[in-house]
Amino acid sequence: MSYFPQQRSLSGDLGLALQFVFQKALRSLGSEEQIAKWDPLCNKLQILATYAQTELGHGTYLQGLETEATYDAATQEFVVHSPTLTAIKWWPGDLGRSATHALVQAQLICSGAQQGMHAFIVPIRSLEDHSPLPGITVGDIGPKMDFDHSDNGFLQLDHVRVPRENMLSRFAQVLPDGTYIKLGTAKSNYLSMVVVRVDILSDEVIPLLQKACVIAIRYSVIRRQSRLRPSDPEAKVLDYQTQQQKLFPPLAKAYAFHFVANSLLEFFHRSYSSILDRDFSLLPELHALSAGMKALVSDFCIQGAELCRRACGGHGYSKLSGLPSLVTRVTASCTYEGENTVLYLQTARFLVKSYLQAQESTSQRSLPQSVAYLTAPDLAMCPAQKVADFLHPELYTTAWAHVAARLIKDSVHHLQTLMQSGADRHEAWNQTTVIHLQAAKAHLYYVTVKIFTEALEKLENQPAIQQVLKRLCDLYALHGIMTNTGDFLHDGFLSGAQIDMARKAYLDLLLLIRKDAILLTDAFDFSDQCLNSALGCYDGNVYERLFQWAQKSPTNTQGNPAYEKYIRPLLQGWRSRL
Amino acid sequence: MSYFPQQRSLSGDLGLALQFVFQKALRSLGSEEQIAKWDPLCNKLQILATYAQTELGHGTYLQGLETEATYDAATQEFVVHSPTLTAIKWWPGDLGRSATHALVQAQLICSGAQQGMHAFIVPIRSLEDHSPLPGITVGDIGPKMDFDHSDNGFLQLDHVRVPRENMLSRFAQVLPDGTYIKLGTAKSNYLSMVVVRVDILSDEVIPLLQKACVIAIRYSVIRRQSRLRPSDPEAKVLDYQTQQQKLFPPLAKAYAFHFVANSLLEFFHRSYSSILDRDFSLLPELHALSAGMKALVSDFCIQGAELCRRACGGHGYSKLSGLPSLVTRVTASCTYEGENTVLYLQTARFLVKSYLQAQESTSQRSLPQSVAYLTAPDLAMCPAQKVADFLHPELYTTAWAHVAARLIKDSVHHLQTLMQSGADRHEAWNQTTVIHLQAAKAHLYYVTVKIFTEALEKLENQPAIQQVLKRLCDLYALHGIMTNTGDFLHDGFLSGAQIDMARKAYLDLLLLIRKDAILLTDAFDFSDQCLNSALGCYDGNVYERLFQWAQKSPTNTQGNPAYEKYIRPLLQGWRSRL
Repeated sequence: MSYFPQQRSLSGDLGLALQFVFQKALRSLGSEEQIAKWDPLCNKLQILATYAQTELGHGTYLQGLETEATYDAATQEFVVHSPTLTAIKWWPGDLGRSATHALVQAQLICSGAQQGMHAFIVPIRSLEDHSPLPGITVGDIGPKMDFDHSDNGFLQLDHVRVPRENMLSRFAQVLPDGTYIKLGTAKSNYLSMVVVRVDILSDEVIPLLQKACVIAIRYSVIRRQSRLRPSDPEAKVLDYQTQQQKLFPPLAKAYAFHFVANSLLEFFHRSYSSILDRDFSLLPELHALSAGMKALVSDFCIQGAELCRRACGGHGYSKLSGLPSLVTRVTASCTYEGENTVLYLQTARFLVKSYLQAQESTSQRSLPQSVAYLTAPDLAMCPAQKVADFLHPELYTTAWAHVAARLIKDSVHHLQTLMQSGADRHEAWNQTTVIHLQAAKAHLYYVTVKIFTEALEKLENQPAIQQVLKRLCDLYALHGIMTNTGDFLHDGFLSGAQIDMARKAYLDLLLLIRKDAILLTDAFDFSDQCLNSALGCYDGNVYERLFQWAQKSPTNTQGNPAYEKYIRPLLQGWRSRL
Repeated sequence: MSYFPQQRSLSGDLGLALQFVFQKALRSLGSEEQIAKWDPLCNKLQILATYAQTELGHGTYLQGLETEATYDAATQEFVVHSPTLTAIKWWPGDLGRSATHALVQAQLICSGAQQGMHAFIVPIRSLEDHSPLPGITVGDIGPKMDFDHSDNGFLQLDHVRVPRENMLSRFAQVLPDGTYIKLGTAKSNYLSMVVVRVDILSDEVIPLLQKACVIAIRYSVIRRQSRLRPSDPEAKVLDYQTQQQKLFPPLAKAYAFHFVANSLLEFFHRSYSSILDRDFSLLPELHALSAGMKALVSDFCIQGAELCRRACGGHGYSKLSGLPSLVTRVTASCTYEGENTVLYLQTARFLVKSYLQAQESTSQRSLPQSVAYLTAPDLAMCPAQKVADFLHPELYTTAWAHVAARLIKDSVHHLQTLMQSGADRHEAWNQTTVIHLQAAKAHLYYVTVKIFTEALEKLENQPAIQQVLKRLCDLYALHGIMTNTGDFLHDGFLSGAQIDMARKAYLDLLLLIRKDAILLTDAFDFSDQCLNSALGCYDGNVYERLFQWAQKSPTNTQGNPAYEKYIRPLLQGWRSRL
């Protein structure tokens, strides 16, 4: 069974990835003329571009960026400038030693007024000899946890002048005389971030989890350790319940997120063209959903990849397993393209608004689709009476909707209570953010469960595949309940006895999934070359490969200079003192 | 306030650390004559030793180790041999390129009978020229996630002969004629592992979490991002509730584990001397407690250090922050000195035994101290009526005892039910291990809460310090409840309303701890040199230091060979085609 028909390439491992980010931003924020001019230059590699947003002092908080672009009507140029040390652009990929152009996000100042963040194309290195252009200080930000192949850089701008045409102007223009014309909303500049957030999940984050699952699950049927019964041979570690409990929830997530990313892309494409045409009605939901989903999916992919690594014991700590680099790579995704906590809270703000909107009975019909459940009829108690009841998608989807709705209501209630007791709106928000986070996560989990169950329904013509994937969907939903039992018990929606039934259903699923586990990982169709793992190769020759690869390590083939320098004097020093 | 009076050294960063592990094992397992012979050789660095236990095919499961030591009475030698590829010793530190001797754990075979694992001192490299001795294949296992400075190695033994005196013989001896004499229990060989497990927490694991807390909390009062109110200047990120929620639980753990490690060491020293004298009565509890506590403490230190790293956003991903190496280092601790899941389950087996023992009313008085609560009177419902009630150590300690006892009872019940329904003992154990894990973790958490509260009581002469530390203790206990609410709600011990009170108490504590946060990290007394972090320096000059350190990075000072080789041909190629 190969559900993922294409052999995966080494996606994301190529250099110059920021060229694509530049181009996505250009196509989202640029005018047709600007796209026509710059896009071909990128395609033909006549320029190497990067996207320079974050600064030494500011990341996700865009309004805090300090870089300025001041319009000079006399010359029809923008003067792009880093006014402080903390204004130095910091982190853009390919900037340190490669890029010739940067799309610089800067505070626009024209006719003396600040107009917020806008994007400017700034040439930074000579196309002749690659030297930094006048006013440009540029370099590499130094060693990182991973991404050694990417020259993340810094960029300090000292009154660098670029022509008026270099401000991307789909949603805002500056006329020659300095008149500012707004064509979008204050949020339209975020559109390029939404594009990248949606893409990064399918292109980078989810495949990293999938690879980790393949490696760990394949290794777990080769590795034998201890015995299930004293008289048996040593057991494959995948036959231990605790190993299944480590690896199958991440596997279920790897599948769940495949469908989530597809659904998000579909929604994105539906709304994107109307937004480009300046119809912004779907932007709030698209923003809330893409922000929150980026946070939830990346958090779980990070957690899952590390679980897979640890499930391989000591060998998972060896770089020859391929797992350390998957982990150190995926862990960056909680920060890039928006810090996850900030993103969850953006979803939370949307939920508070939606909840209040749902309370106004007249407007119920206009609730965005992803929060429509806030007005659906709700049960006070779960009707499950036996273990098998927990294998009904409708039952667990309803359970998740109940918990999400309760937590959103709880978060709004706490916010309002604090405000009624005299706290101002901002203070009240800060003092309830931990509660809002919890609500946002429950909402997002509900959305993922719903997407997975809906994807299953569409597979009715492929019953064998549907059956296997339904187990993963059940496991995904129940694992979420098992790791958040308190949320389901809190108001008595589930009883302790029902939690025990759900746990039984969950543990039984582990045994069923065990049978298909290898096929489910083969279906991702990663080549050995792409996995680059001594533990995860298709043929299972784990130990031979570990020993061969270790022997080829430079530490074994390049001599031992430390012996002459340190060890021999140490060991033989005492003899000379005899 | 400096509760930790000594400036910390670069503990654990020194090479040749395995010398100490060898010596600890020697002193635990060796006879007086053996200690007298080998200990001084180590102290004077006349030999460089390592401890070779794990193999390519086996880690924590000692009984599965394949290396053999067969006694040859004709020559009074042991023949130490790796019979298979998977028997190759794998991972010992300092083995790859440094050690001259290894303490090899091997299956003893004498007079044709297998006698289980014993430890043998095996010379592996010439003291003259460091070349491998006859029969020895030795080398480095290749790149790892961290510990680049440590040459973890492999060792293949081809019928290597060592004299009879080289088997460590405090607890077992082989007489010249091959007669085997046992002086300890089957478990006494584990004693050296217990020693190392206890030490590793204070020497390596806990300091790594403490350093991560210092760096992240110091940075969080320098970093300003967004505004609490639109009219305010940008806020220090430590003033956000979500940042406090990330950083203060790890800080509380860093303190809790300081006391836990002390208490464990104290118990260890109490029991160690009697064990050396072959009184093994305290060994089961010592083993269960040290195994489980190693797992719990290392799990939380790993989680906490990574939380600290992520709480620093993008800069926490830069190696200049010092955080990536703390994380990649501490994360190894879930595997070394015993894989954590296996260790928790060893605690769980002890708990099952203790529970059954507690059920036999006649033996109640002899329950080991750490499980004495299994026979204590228990409440069905928590008496808390208001938020402040959750700040009473007795209340939350009792709550943890209740939950631990209930989960242990539940795990035994599930085990017995499965066996009564026909599953054999081993199958039943495997099918309930997820439940046993949960029980073991709750038990261990209870023990840590109890140790922390008892440590506080001893501080009554220092009321100011006691007050500050009590908040951390309260936070530690309540954070545990907040992350496991389901366990407390399951049987109605806490109600939903009481959980909300506990949450209020918990959130209020964050604000109180905020005031002392910097002093609490200063008190660990790490020097700037030891932290080696651009974010965590005492003076707070974060951005200046990041910029300076980045500029000194080799990628900026060593030219850009990629330009001539790749970028110039790429950028100028199109011109030549004009």
